[in-house]
Amino acid sequence: MHKVISFYINLINETLKERVVKKEPANLYEPIDYTLKLGGKRIRPALLMLANNLFDGNDKTALNSALAIEIFHNFTLLHDDIMDEAPLRRGKPSVYKKWNTNVAILSGDVMLIESIQLLSKKNHPNLHQVLSIFNTTAIQVCEGQQLDMDFEELPNVSIDDYLKMIELKTAVLLGASLKIGAVISHASSDNSHHIYEFGKNLGIAFQLMDDILDLYGDPEKVGKRIGGDVISNKKTYLLLKAQELATGKAKKDLEFCLSSIVLDDNTKIEKVKSIFNTLNIKKLALEEMNLFYNTAISHLDSVDANESKKMVFEQFAKGLMKRDN
Amino acid sequence: MHKVISFYINLINETLKERVVKKEPANLYEPIDYTLKLGGKRIRPALLMLANNLFDGNDKTALNSALAIEIFHNFTLLHDDIMDEAPLRRGKPSVYKKWNTNVAILSGDVMLIESIQLLSKKNHPNLHQVLSIFNTTAIQVCEGQQLDMDFEELPNVSIDDYLKMIELKTAVLLGASLKIGAVISHASSDNSHHIYEFGKNLGIAFQLMDDILDLYGDPEKVGKRIGGDVISNKKTYLLLKAQELATGKAKKDLEFCLSSIVLDDNTKIEKVKSIFNTLNIKKLALEEMNLFYNTAISHLDSVDANESKKMVFEQFAKGLMKRDN
Repeated sequence: MHKVISFYINLINETLKERVVKKEPANLYEPIDYTLKLGGKRIRPALLMLANNLFDGNDKTALNSALAIEIFHNFTLLHDDIMDEAPLRRGKPSVYKKWNTNVAILSGDVMLIESIQLLSKKNHPNLHQVLSIFNTTAIQVCEGQQLDMDFEELPNVSIDDYLKMIELKTAVLLGASLKIGAVISHASSDNSHHIYEFGKNLGIAFQLMDDILDLYGDPEKVGKRIGGDVISNKKTYLLLKAQELATGKAKKDLEFCLSSIVLDDNTKIEKVKSIFNTLNIKKLALEEMNLFYNTAISHLDSVDANESKKMVFEQFAKGLMKRDN
Repeated sequence: MHKVISFYINLINETLKERVVKKEPANLYEPIDYTLKLGGKRIRPALLMLANNLFDGNDKTALNSALAIEIFHNFTLLHDDIMDEAPLRRGKPSVYKKWNTNVAILSGDVMLIESIQLLSKKNHPNLHQVLSIFNTTAIQVCEGQQLDMDFEELPNVSIDDYLKMIELKTAVLLGASLKIGAVISHASSDNSHHIYEFGKNLGIAFQLMDDILDLYGDPEKVGKRIGGDVISNKKTYLLLKAQELATGKAKKDLEFCLSSIVLDDNTKIEKVKSIFNTLNIKKLALEEMNLFYNTAISHLDSVDANESKKMVFEQFAKGLMKRDN
């Protein structure tokens, strides 16, 4: 990882560690402290700082906005974990499991408000624009989560709908982090637009890579069991593309795998993988991923800024796609 | 009710009715529309408009902020109803009952973001200050809800802690509504302070009146069963004051009523009421209420503005205390 990126990640972690935490009511503030100290890759705030640096902004001004984005992201995790009934977060009990659902709802609410508070802590000429980007994005993230839940109940989800969902749920926040970094450093609207599109498209590519790695990743590098999405019938790009393309025997076999209650996990994974291989799903998914990745890079190319600083973004993007966790 | 107040309440209701509602995802936006059309007294947005009018602000500028406050208030109801397991809201199923908990969490989140979006829709010189008041208040409201839930589990709650809780949970939002109305109409900081304190103290008085009416109200006027708080052992001002003052036989009798599982509801209400009467609780509660009410009025007196416009606030305050619902 480039040393500028590590520098910003360390800065975010140090600032979160030294953050003054209100003590009372303990049931409201302890879960927030717990969540923010669970760690995380800090990708979003690092991107905000990087974008701010790209356009020669002031690090101190940007830091509050970077923390705001990280706290907002963690707010979504608190509420998502309730909705998705996810007992673990970063290997530790999620807040609704460690405390209870009410605590996770209310602490999450406070984190959402704290993120707005941090964004608008200092008055600056672009405050209105920053809030406008943030609010639009925050609502999109909620829409993405709702679509994700809706899709679980639907028999058919199109690839277009799926791409829209991951764009809203994951990708727009990466774009917005970069755009806010750009806007507070007074970047031109063209540059702000291109850096946003870089982040958004990279985010979609990243999510598609996630889908691919679930089945085709190296278990040691991915750090979790291979095929988890297959076992749970999760509507990933791979499955949706297979459902779109499968006909005849492949279609019947796939339907059997999805509905059978007699198949053991390993057999199910092997059977589904073999259907995917017949339909060339891995290659198609990689092509789709590369499409978004290349769109991201072409937007980065269109950014008018110091070329060596732009290289850090490209390196970051490459690192993200080759990730081993 | 003064015609200026009715005018603003109608304006809020009409604007909410004509509000353009996003259609998709339906599970996210239908509950918001449902909630905002359930009605409500619209006290908070009306106060904001009134304060804005008091300091000769522009109605159109204030309207977005007024809607923001009403949507924020309704966001708190959506999440509170989950936490308090309240199946009804304004006589209709609450959102988590009509849909489910996940829908109520996520729709509530969107309402919170929409309220910030409305507050910051237009760029104006005092945007930073308005957001600062709003964010501080929003966090206080969450703290109040947490304290309210914490108190249910505590054996002893002091009167001071109770007053702090109702200040946070209910009163500060009335104060903030007025202060935001004042700030967007460029009122002086002294005037903004006094109108805030008027609202906050009136809010506490209002909540104390609520506690008193539960047991001493006219059932027809109060519109609900008398003694509901007594039946559920709710830690109201009346009960906490009685626990503070009771000694000897009264103390024993009160403890019996709170812990007995054999008493039927009506007997319990009669017994508790008789203990309260011995301890003069109604009079003490009315005195406490009047203390806050008079503090509210003295802050109103200190506001430097048109006296006939100020009279509308006093009339509003009186009406609120003599409410029959």
